[in-house]
Amino acid sequence: MVETSSSIFFFGDGKADGNSSMRDLLGGKGAGLAEMSNAGIPVPPGITITTDTCAEFFKNNNNLPDNLKLEMQSALIRIGKIVGTEFGSATNPLLLSVRSGARVSMPGMMDTVLNLGLNDETVQGLADISKDPRFAYDSYRRFVAMFGDVVLGVRRKTDEDEDPFEHLLNEKKKKYRVELDTELDVSALKELVSEYKALIFDSLGVTFPDDPWLQLWAAISAVFLSWHSDRAKIYRKLNNFSDSWGTAVNVQSMVFGNLGDNCATGVCFTRDPSNGLKGLVGEYLINAQGEDVVAGVRTPQKILKKHRTDSEDSSLEESMPKSLEELLAVSDKLEHHFGDMQDIEFTIQQNKLWILQTRNAKRTGLAMVKIAVDLVEENFISKEEALKRIDPEQINELLHPIFKSYKNVVPIAQGLAASPGAAVGKVVFTAADASIAAKNGKNVILVRDETSPEDIEGMTTAVGILTARGGTTSHAAVVARGMGKPCITGCKELKIDYKKKIFTINTGSDALVIMEGDVISIDGTTGLVLLGALETEDAVFPDEYEKLLSWANAVRTINVRSNADTPEDARRAREFGAEGIGLCRTEHMFFGESRILAFREMICAETKDDRLMALNKILPIQRDDFIGIFRAMNGLPVTIRLLDPPLHEFLPNSDNEIKELAETIGKDVNFVISKVDSLREINPMLGHRGVRLAVTSPEIYEIQVRAIIEAACQLKKENISVLPEIMIPLIGLEEEIQMLSETVHNIAKIVMNENNVKIDYLVGTMIELPRACIIADKIAHYVDFFSFGTNDLTQTTFGLSRDDSSRFLPDYINKGIFNTDPFVEIDQPGVGALVEIGIKNGRSVKKDLKIGICGEHGGNPPSIKFCYDAGMNYVSCSPFRVPIALFAAAQASL
Amino acid sequence: MVETSSSIFFFGDGKADGNSSMRDLLGGKGAGLAEMSNAGIPVPPGITITTDTCAEFFKNNNNLPDNLKLEMQSALIRIGKIVGTEFGSATNPLLLSVRSGARVSMPGMMDTVLNLGLNDETVQGLADISKDPRFAYDSYRRFVAMFGDVVLGVRRKTDEDEDPFEHLLNEKKKKYRVELDTELDVSALKELVSEYKALIFDSLGVTFPDDPWLQLWAAISAVFLSWHSDRAKIYRKLNNFSDSWGTAVNVQSMVFGNLGDNCATGVCFTRDPSNGLKGLVGEYLINAQGEDVVAGVRTPQKILKKHRTDSEDSSLEESMPKSLEELLAVSDKLEHHFGDMQDIEFTIQQNKLWILQTRNAKRTGLAMVKIAVDLVEENFISKEEALKRIDPEQINELLHPIFKSYKNVVPIAQGLAASPGAAVGKVVFTAADASIAAKNGKNVILVRDETSPEDIEGMTTAVGILTARGGTTSHAAVVARGMGKPCITGCKELKIDYKKKIFTINTGSDALVIMEGDVISIDGTTGLVLLGALETEDAVFPDEYEKLLSWANAVRTINVRSNADTPEDARRAREFGAEGIGLCRTEHMFFGESRILAFREMICAETKDDRLMALNKILPIQRDDFIGIFRAMNGLPVTIRLLDPPLHEFLPNSDNEIKELAETIGKDVNFVISKVDSLREINPMLGHRGVRLAVTSPEIYEIQVRAIIEAACQLKKENISVLPEIMIPLIGLEEEIQMLSETVHNIAKIVMNENNVKIDYLVGTMIELPRACIIADKIAHYVDFFSFGTNDLTQTTFGLSRDDSSRFLPDYINKGIFNTDPFVEIDQPGVGALVEIGIKNGRSVKKDLKIGICGEHGGNPPSIKFCYDAGMNYVSCSPFRVPIALFAAAQASL
Repeated sequence: MVETSSSIFFFGDGKADGNSSMRDLLGGKGAGLAEMSNAGIPVPPGITITTDTCAEFFKNNNNLPDNLKLEMQSALIRIGKIVGTEFGSATNPLLLSVRSGARVSMPGMMDTVLNLGLNDETVQGLADISKDPRFAYDSYRRFVAMFGDVVLGVRRKTDEDEDPFEHLLNEKKKKYRVELDTELDVSALKELVSEYKALIFDSLGVTFPDDPWLQLWAAISAVFLSWHSDRAKIYRKLNNFSDSWGTAVNVQSMVFGNLGDNCATGVCFTRDPSNGLKGLVGEYLINAQGEDVVAGVRTPQKILKKHRTDSEDSSLEESMPKSLEELLAVSDKLEHHFGDMQDIEFTIQQNKLWILQTRNAKRTGLAMVKIAVDLVEENFISKEEALKRIDPEQINELLHPIFKSYKNVVPIAQGLAASPGAAVGKVVFTAADASIAAKNGKNVILVRDETSPEDIEGMTTAVGILTARGGTTSHAAVVARGMGKPCITGCKELKIDYKKKIFTINTGSDALVIMEGDVISIDGTTGLVLLGALETEDAVFPDEYEKLLSWANAVRTINVRSNADTPEDARRAREFGAEGIGLCRTEHMFFGESRILAFREMICAETKDDRLMALNKILPIQRDDFIGIFRAMNGLPVTIRLLDPPLHEFLPNSDNEIKELAETIGKDVNFVISKVDSLREINPMLGHRGVRLAVTSPEIYEIQVRAIIEAACQLKKENISVLPEIMIPLIGLEEEIQMLSETVHNIAKIVMNENNVKIDYLVGTMIELPRACIIADKIAHYVDFFSFGTNDLTQTTFGLSRDDSSRFLPDYINKGIFNTDPFVEIDQPGVGALVEIGIKNGRSVKKDLKIGICGEHGGNPPSIKFCYDAGMNYVSCSPFRVPIALFAAAQASL
Repeated sequence: MVETSSSIFFFGDGKADGNSSMRDLLGGKGAGLAEMSNAGIPVPPGITITTDTCAEFFKNNNNLPDNLKLEMQSALIRIGKIVGTEFGSATNPLLLSVRSGARVSMPGMMDTVLNLGLNDETVQGLADISKDPRFAYDSYRRFVAMFGDVVLGVRRKTDEDEDPFEHLLNEKKKKYRVELDTELDVSALKELVSEYKALIFDSLGVTFPDDPWLQLWAAISAVFLSWHSDRAKIYRKLNNFSDSWGTAVNVQSMVFGNLGDNCATGVCFTRDPSNGLKGLVGEYLINAQGEDVVAGVRTPQKILKKHRTDSEDSSLEESMPKSLEELLAVSDKLEHHFGDMQDIEFTIQQNKLWILQTRNAKRTGLAMVKIAVDLVEENFISKEEALKRIDPEQINELLHPIFKSYKNVVPIAQGLAASPGAAVGKVVFTAADASIAAKNGKNVILVRDETSPEDIEGMTTAVGILTARGGTTSHAAVVARGMGKPCITGCKELKIDYKKKIFTINTGSDALVIMEGDVISIDGTTGLVLLGALETEDAVFPDEYEKLLSWANAVRTINVRSNADTPEDARRAREFGAEGIGLCRTEHMFFGESRILAFREMICAETKDDRLMALNKILPIQRDDFIGIFRAMNGLPVTIRLLDPPLHEFLPNSDNEIKELAETIGKDVNFVISKVDSLREINPMLGHRGVRLAVTSPEIYEIQVRAIIEAACQLKKENISVLPEIMIPLIGLEEEIQMLSETVHNIAKIVMNENNVKIDYLVGTMIELPRACIIADKIAHYVDFFSFGTNDLTQTTFGLSRDDSSRFLPDYINKGIFNTDPFVEIDQPGVGALVEIGIKNGRSVKKDLKIGICGEHGGNPPSIKFCYDAGMNYVSCSPFRVPIALFAAAQASL
């Protein structure tokens, strides 16, 4: 009998008949096992039954070819010898796993059968060797159930039914009045095995096969037949895979770490996943099964001596020095083989090391950066490969504090992860209270139904923000991300009572009441809200970060700018690597104490003169705002968006503020109230905002442009390089941009003449309405740049309010209608198509039109890839997402 | 001297040197005058100076060619002879008008100069002949001012200044303490002439030319020079007209109807403009100027004897029988020449008839229809030409009552003309009050800030609706048009105080307070609100209507359906000629007394079972709704839109209703209040509505589909032909329509099986989001038809809320940014482009996809043309616009 026959391919013991190039014949899993074995990795030995054999099986009316059976018999002898066991032996049985493996991965096509080979005789052998009859009979009853279900097809009748094997197990636990499976003793398990077998007979009229060979043929046949199961057929159809490929079958020896004190089991990493330091770390247990290591019943021991403390049990290094040596050698090989840090499961059976599984290891952001750089410097991988391996989102962990551990803490609620990071503070319910508490040196979490622009100051002083409503692009989310502050939005379980200054979670007997001043912890990375103060860990950049960033910047071809409304934000963004400001919103500037009153005066003015008088009070303040930002961005472009939100957002709501405003403008309170009423809108998103404000009250934009150009002139005189890009929002009509670009140029000319200074400024527009995309060629005539405002474009293209969508988006995600939130990742078939139309139309008129994006998508890696592919010049995102965007942009270029 | 020289072309006295083919040389006006004259129409004689002469003038450094002057001299002698006057004569002066006239009309390029030839001598002659020195000197001072302004260029210095001539006139009136120009006597007018001349000298340093010839050369030169004025250049640039064309100049004799009792002046129509009856109608005045006829100082007399009563002065037929005969002959000629009813201004100077102006006459809708049919039957025009001449909007007048006259009534306010027709009634402020008043037999006008779906019943009982807010596609407007009820929306001057049950217009001393029960009249055709009861006139269809409609239907190739929510609407639409229902909204059905409570129960239900229980109460009622509509539309398709509006629109607002609901569902009032609160949305237009309701609560659509198919089954058993088209609103994603079309088919199958009846139903979708247009190919796979909902598509494409836009749209229209309201006429470059993308994409997958429109644009003639051009199968509009749409659709095919 030759092992390289047409039916089966052997692997194990540092050799293999096949190799990784034989995927079509051996399937993906079989080829991988052969490859590992060839590389000298001690995988438990086994054989792969080829896909050709599968075809023969079907041709042969679903009968296994005779030669296969013969070949299997001699293969199992060889395997048994390697492991030191014998298939069907009553004293030292070889047990097998049987798994399918097609040339492509087809998840869920067939379950695995483990411990094949057990029967009333062999189970006794297992009990003897392991000296653990309970383990042996538990393995046996599990095998019978698995075989009955997967191979024979004893299933529940309707979706509502309990699994029939599960049902018997539960009855048994009831009978013995125990809670856990592990509390059942050997005799109970023996009863179960009998009952399982009876169930199989009653259901199918067939006897459970005690003969291990019959078990094996049945299992192999069942794997072949699963190729034509309904779910496999549907899966292939969806993925355009051919029905003719067939599947291979992998039959592999089981190995056990619980057969005595010369046995062990463990998990290890080739580097430290928490900080990326080179060298093995891991844990193991002597005489144990794999699940014991993670179950926490016994305390796992360290693998290396240097990792353990004096009070801990001995390390693998001490207890099984030879096995450790083998493990170190194998780990090294695996890292080389896969070119990345590995997460390895191993078992030692009677002093022999077996590798059960290895995979690229999950790691912290810190470790990700360090390992990527180390692997390049160790000549494992190229710089490009290192950059491709970075998960840009994980860079977040370098920027924000995290909670050290969630151990023993149950979250009280979960909302949307709106801005990453961990925060601990006392609950307050108003922006004003937040400011007062902060002045008294208290850390506070601001809890609101939702926030509005007038809460900005309170948000600045809070350490974290939690809202009951709103999505991940709601006001709170956007502002918090801009500030790099942890924020959770859309936490629907929260019911806030502002009057009582409490919030409640749940109702009835489960109700939990949190009062003002109570301490909570919020995790903006996961959306979890926790009671009490969790310990946080500060964020640090590893030393390797700058090197990795420099590699990224070397391959990156799309610019990364930042959204920033203040000099502080601008400075921070620049430190993070931003190459300009892509969006400076001017509306936040109007909410400061010194100006909101003047701005409200402007809104209430009834004549142009009164409006101008009020605006003139704002002019010098606004000019100083721009001076600060321009100074911080010396030499880099700054895109300033003229006023965008509807005026009602600026009007007062509280009685006091209304009274103050009425006194300031010399009108009675009713006048102000009726003004507030008259400006209210049914759909403010689609209302009187953006350029529409400038059409009805041209003075607002005129004063803003004056402030921008005056600031630029003043700084130019100080030899600071200023590159203002003036951006007009919400353009939908050619006539709007025609009128407004003219206004901007006129004012700029006047101011430059007054100062006798020439400023190189640009005029551009937001493209944030479907109509603007459609007529972008008309708009392009009047502007130097486009900036796609994909937040609003997503809202209008979908007809979807981001403030209201939290009510039904969860259902959309659950039912698979949306795979991702379109406010997080740009919707390429819809919104993306309109963006592409806009770019094509715009560039058809101006070949070199500068084009960027300044919505929230500008910091989302898949969206950045889209922007790159669409031919944009830059993306702009909030300061704390600049590092993420830099790496995502580099990846887009690769 | 030959008149057909290269410089000037004569016309008048039934002859002309030129003809209508010589537009390039004579300009449009000159060619037209030649044509009229050739046709034997007695136009006052004159000459046209050619565009070649204009070119020569410019070549000659802006000097008139010498031969022109010679030719003019002999031409004026000829003209004077025809009219019986002499240019420059002190006793019988020929006076001239001088006008520009390029080959294309260029409105506003240059004003007209009238009465050229007057000076201190000739004015005396005019005074003598007319025996009216005041008229003569008034003509003289007007001429001097006009000449000073138009020819010499004495203008105000800034836009704020008063016109300098006007200023002197006002000073004069102050001096003589009179109010009106007409109160100034001869000596005052003489003073003005001197002062005007002094003004000219002071301003320009030149003397006003007393010599008529100098006046003439200056006027001709000024016309030529006006070709190069800034506004003319801009106008040409905008219209792509060539600068090289130049302008012609028309110099024409003035004629006077006030030179004695053998003179007269008048206006007449060749048919009766109020009802279209054939035969001259008109009025005249003996010894009068044109403006006297319209000024109302003297009472004009009838032209025909049969039109006057015994108490009226004699007719032209009696006083000047020869002139009448001439006038009848000329009228006939003019009607033949232009092929349409004419509106003619004429003057009789010393028994000689002159036609001053003729144009196609404005007419009522009634007359429009009758005349169009009559002209075909008189063999004037073809049927196609008759159809082209119809203004579909004017068909409105046949459908709605109008006010007999506005004489002596000043409107108190004006809003948007939202639904045509005239209504008179007592003011009420709530829908409930409207219902009560209507039950007591009172006609009421419902006055609201805006209406909402729960006001439907009150709106049904009111005779007219007036709202302070909202545009022409607001709820009030759409519902009123559907009911054919007069409605004015967006009447911003209205300040309603619901508590006091009053509304006020204006403030301070102008304030006008209207109380509940006061009678007002509203004109939905003009948007005017009037105090008191105006007399109305009922609408009637003329006998010719059916004939004209049959011609229209013969050429029409696009179907016209109607939007209708009730059997009554459906019947009316069918009577008007609708070929199906294009939009049956199911939400209005939920507001009836019998069902709103059950629907509110459904909304408040916390489990699927409770929801189903509530919906099952609605099922039989809803089924009956559909039975009524299907029965009315026997044999014609009915498109039913499943529930669209957000659920909060259905929840109660008043304390009583909240209490009633709480009792019904056995919860406390706070539960209902918090439910109402929790469903409130920031941007309901972009919120939880349309198909999104079905994603979160599938039961709603399931019950609606069941009701539709059950209704269809029942009627099919009665042998009624039912063609239901089930339409799913607000589709934006392929996955939505995939899921919902499956649901519809599943339910339909179940119900058809239950009834053992097969129904030919279709499943379709609204295309009303930009994203739906973009992915229309994906959507088309799952549907039988598209219906473009261009109301919502306009809102999302522009990012423009129709409920809020009334605040800034007026500025947009005033500043020329919008030429038309995009909610009234489809925006072709933006929304239209998306519609075309949607049609192209949809038909790329399904060649025969049925496509229609069901927004308000479906009843707007230019939009109907667009729909036809875009390849739609049908348009759908409110019942009362069906006749309009039928004609507009016919015109589209022509």
